[in-house]
Amino acid sequence: MTFSTIDQEMMALALQEARRATMETSPNPKVGCVLLKGGEIIGQGHTQKVGQAHAEVMALRDAVNKGHDVSGATAYVTLEPCSHYGRTPPCANALIEARVARVVAAIEDANPQVAGRGFAMLRDAGIEVAHGLMAAEAREMNIGFLRRMETGKPWVRLKMAASLDGFTALPNGHSQWITDSEARVDGHRWRSRADAILTGIGTVLVDDPQMTVRLPGQEISRQPRKVIADSMLRTPENAQLLQSGETTLVHTQATLLPESKMGRLREKGVQLLELPGADGSGVDLNALVLELGRQQVNELHVEAGASLSGALMAAGVVDELLLYLAPKFLGAGKTMFELPTLSDVNQAMAWQVHEMKPIGNSIRVLLRK
Amino acid sequence: MTFSTIDQEMMALALQEARRATMETSPNPKVGCVLLKGGEIIGQGHTQKVGQAHAEVMALRDAVNKGHDVSGATAYVTLEPCSHYGRTPPCANALIEARVARVVAAIEDANPQVAGRGFAMLRDAGIEVAHGLMAAEAREMNIGFLRRMETGKPWVRLKMAASLDGFTALPNGHSQWITDSEARVDGHRWRSRADAILTGIGTVLVDDPQMTVRLPGQEISRQPRKVIADSMLRTPENAQLLQSGETTLVHTQATLLPESKMGRLREKGVQLLELPGADGSGVDLNALVLELGRQQVNELHVEAGASLSGALMAAGVVDELLLYLAPKFLGAGKTMFELPTLSDVNQAMAWQVHEMKPIGNSIRVLLRK
Repeated sequence: MTFSTIDQEMMALALQEARRATMETSPNPKVGCVLLKGGEIIGQGHTQKVGQAHAEVMALRDAVNKGHDVSGATAYVTLEPCSHYGRTPPCANALIEARVARVVAAIEDANPQVAGRGFAMLRDAGIEVAHGLMAAEAREMNIGFLRRMETGKPWVRLKMAASLDGFTALPNGHSQWITDSEARVDGHRWRSRADAILTGIGTVLVDDPQMTVRLPGQEISRQPRKVIADSMLRTPENAQLLQSGETTLVHTQATLLPESKMGRLREKGVQLLELPGADGSGVDLNALVLELGRQQVNELHVEAGASLSGALMAAGVVDELLLYLAPKFLGAGKTMFELPTLSDVNQAMAWQVHEMKPIGNSIRVLLRK
Repeated sequence: MTFSTIDQEMMALALQEARRATMETSPNPKVGCVLLKGGEIIGQGHTQKVGQAHAEVMALRDAVNKGHDVSGATAYVTLEPCSHYGRTPPCANALIEARVARVVAAIEDANPQVAGRGFAMLRDAGIEVAHGLMAAEAREMNIGFLRRMETGKPWVRLKMAASLDGFTALPNGHSQWITDSEARVDGHRWRSRADAILTGIGTVLVDDPQMTVRLPGQEISRQPRKVIADSMLRTPENAQLLQSGETTLVHTQATLLPESKMGRLREKGVQLLELPGADGSGVDLNALVLELGRQQVNELHVEAGASLSGALMAAGVVDELLLYLAPKFLGAGKTMFELPTLSDVNQAMAWQVHEMKPIGNSIRVLLRK
């Protein structure tokens, strides 16, 4: 499929529209739509909050509000128009009713309720359909949604900051600040696009973190849900992360846990989630990730210590590593990951360097499988 | 000073010429020269082996050989023409005698015997002189020569390969291969530009390395000198690195060492260099670096274990770190640097990321102070 320069410009604009939907649409995908007619952009829009209008409908409304006749227009959408009655009617219907002549989509929707049916509906109605334009960018934007549609699991991104010799703290525990403020702000930006942030009870007990998104000079419209792997329910009732927002404590074997504490936590609005234990120690991490997928978490952001981080790595549930490496050398200290002992270097899983970028004075490395 | 597009193109060509002198001219700098007259390149050349012609003379000869009259030409040189009688007569004289009209140099020569005098000689002879064009590239190329002229010490580049969690080998010592072959070849390319390669007795005893430059399908015209920090002269007489090339064993307190071994090593052609010890243990590394500078080493390439590497870092003699980080995680193992214990992360020296680049599947990071 070849696309014109105009097609590319319009899709770039649609992707920009889609980006505006960040932190708003989850668990729905972020989608942008641009309508072009006679060389003129007559409408554009992006997906609204869950249950409200999708991108195509927003763009159609925008065009009508501006007094345009949409018939014969080309619709550029970053994701295949939906074909099913979900919380809203199918967008494919809306495009058909508006009598657009052509639909250009970046990617097919991996949602099994759509998966090509949106395109088929449009074609059956005589609309010209093309897709695959700027597919990589469109996929990145909704990497979590697509992963969940394909596997039932969220996209799991694990963040870790360390010195270039691999230490996250000195032997005495001191770690503030290995990376500079630019890296920390960047880390919060990644937190903000996640639906949930996972940490372990070790971090809660040692650092008492807030686990919130904090970006200087920016209002955060939606805080990700906090999820704590806390098999024995040791999170103190006065822990900072219990004082605001939505928090889930994931434990094992409820029958062994103090009912009074469980009651008080529930009264505070804390969700308690029982999952099987893995080999008697800690929460079964595969079960946890699957359950979070079931609960419509698209992107799971992990910020935890070497123990939980290593266990997630060893369990094979990490899709992406987000590393901030500071150009410092500590010589000794806390390691990044506690992993099963290897006897040969080649037993180590080989990751692929997806991207590397200077952030402040640190190096940000994105690794994927 | 502003330069024309032509000036830039000619200097780029002169830098390319200079690059041809790699591995040939040390301890002299690599220099390239291009002669332009009436819009035509009439001659070009680069510095030859020590004692032979410099770049300017080579370019002038090239022009004359091709039947050109050099008078009125512009000479583009990557370093200020020399003004002193060294092993060869001053190049400034040669340019004056050839009656060039203009000299454009990338940088001033840091050699205290030149340091602006070359430019002055040319100007006194009525030649138009400009410098500062592509200065950064020219400086990089001769970073070791310039450092030695300025400080008496070589540019010290320390190479280290590790997993992204900072381990150079597993706890059982296994380390082949943390990085892939592309990173290893790249490492040999860096070795090849050095005048000497430094390692420690620990590495000699454990790995028995050859410490040579080996590049697939490439003839190596000059092997760097091998220097071993070996305070007690424990290098075995059958060590691989003693079997070819030039090797220096750096020891302390000769009076405590077995004379018979010293004699046999000298007979083999091995240089023995006595230096003071540092705090009773090991060679004084500042003294070592200064001595190697005195011996005209421009670039010193270090490939050593955590002990010597850490000691060099702690002694503050490392100018550049060349790190190859493989996208693997070992969890535990041998650390990159043995360093004095810190109590606060901010006590760690902060390096600057000078460059980062993917090499094979690894990340190559160059750090400078």
